[in-house]
Amino acid sequence: VRIGELSRVSGVPVPTIKYYLREGLLPPGVHTHPNQADYNRGHLSRLRLIRALIDVGGLSISTASELLAVLDTADLDDWESVGKVQYALGRRHVPDPSQAPDQDAGRTVDDLIARRGWRIRPDSPARDTLIQICAALHRLGHDDIIAALDRYAEAIEPVAAVDMSLLKDRTNIAETIEKVIVGTIIGDSLLSALRHLAQEDAARPLLRHTRTKRAT
Amino acid sequence: VRIGELSRVSGVPVPTIKYYLREGLLPPGVHTHPNQADYNRGHLSRLRLIRALIDVGGLSISTASELLAVLDTADLDDWESVGKVQYALGRRHVPDPSQAPDQDAGRTVDDLIARRGWRIRPDSPARDTLIQICAALHRLGHDDIIAALDRYAEAIEPVAAVDMSLLKDRTNIAETIEKVIVGTIIGDSLLSALRHLAQEDAARPLLRHTRTKRAT
Repeated sequence: VRIGELSRVSGVPVPTIKYYLREGLLPPGVHTHPNQADYNRGHLSRLRLIRALIDVGGLSISTASELLAVLDTADLDDWESVGKVQYALGRRHVPDPSQAPDQDAGRTVDDLIARRGWRIRPDSPARDTLIQICAALHRLGHDDIIAALDRYAEAIEPVAAVDMSLLKDRTNIAETIEKVIVGTIIGDSLLSALRHLAQEDAARPLLRHTRTKRAT
Repeated sequence: VRIGELSRVSGVPVPTIKYYLREGLLPPGVHTHPNQADYNRGHLSRLRLIRALIDVGGLSISTASELLAVLDTADLDDWESVGKVQYALGRRHVPDPSQAPDQDAGRTVDDLIARRGWRIRPDSPARDTLIQICAALHRLGHDDIIAALDRYAEAIEPVAAVDMSLLKDRTNIAETIEKVIVGTIIGDSLLSALRHLAQEDAARPLLRHTRTKRAT
């Protein structure tokens, strides 16, 4: 289809589509005439993925672009590609990698990983991120949140188990990688929204200073 | 202290501090001379909070500014202020509120809330966000993630319970509000990092196609 039709079906304005094409987020269409290109279903799915990452996942254009580049350059015959995408996703949050790693925070995180028995590579970006987060929480005086790390880590394992169950039995690497990207980026927003709802429910008796706690 | 000293102690460059002052994220210092202002410990804590929200929480300047405005205008004699801050935090993710709400997604979310027995106000921003997320996941063809909503909701309740335990027994409303902001924004990054680590551990047997699953 032509770009106007792609815009109509996707609901994305033509200038925005042209911007994504220029920035390389969307691969070029097939030129049928010098000034006319043809777009297919693959372009429509990619356009929906871009919008979901930006609008729902809250990614910047440049972060979305980096992630899609990982997707586009992944070796689709090698399952290790899935892990590489996961690492690329983890790196998007590492705050200020130029800052010297905080030794206390590093120990806190490595002790936590050891206590949980998690097998984590030393170059894991999620480990770096968690160290920076702990250092920031300590600087802000929120050591009580750091003290709750074990409880948070224990509570998050069933969440990760649901994540992994959605990847099980997949045989197509490209499809698996898209699931990892969507499940991580949109999944973060989804879990944040669910956490807010669960908090709202849990906060009612607390905020009202009553003791009408519902048996669950 | 003067602005140079505030910069030295906080590690935030003077031009950045001036920018935060201009944008209203940081309240003005007390003018001791026409061209000289004095900053106190309150300014230092606020500066650390701003940096944590932006660098660790990944917020934009404008979102951080909106949240801090809610903190600054909250009625510190009214516990309902805590709920108002929570709603302001929930709204930061609502994608494109101009879009017509998706009826199917709305039903999916309300049914989920009913099944969990969560007491949620109809104007809850987290409910709106979750509806938009479900609509996006459906458009993207990831209905399997929507089908896992009940399992994610069940898994998130213990996380929210840890959140609430950190607010229990607080008597100072301003302090509680800061805890809610930090716990939500930096907490989202923290949970995301923990989820990545738990996934990395859980993914090893899956990616290697082995059956050496460790007993937990």
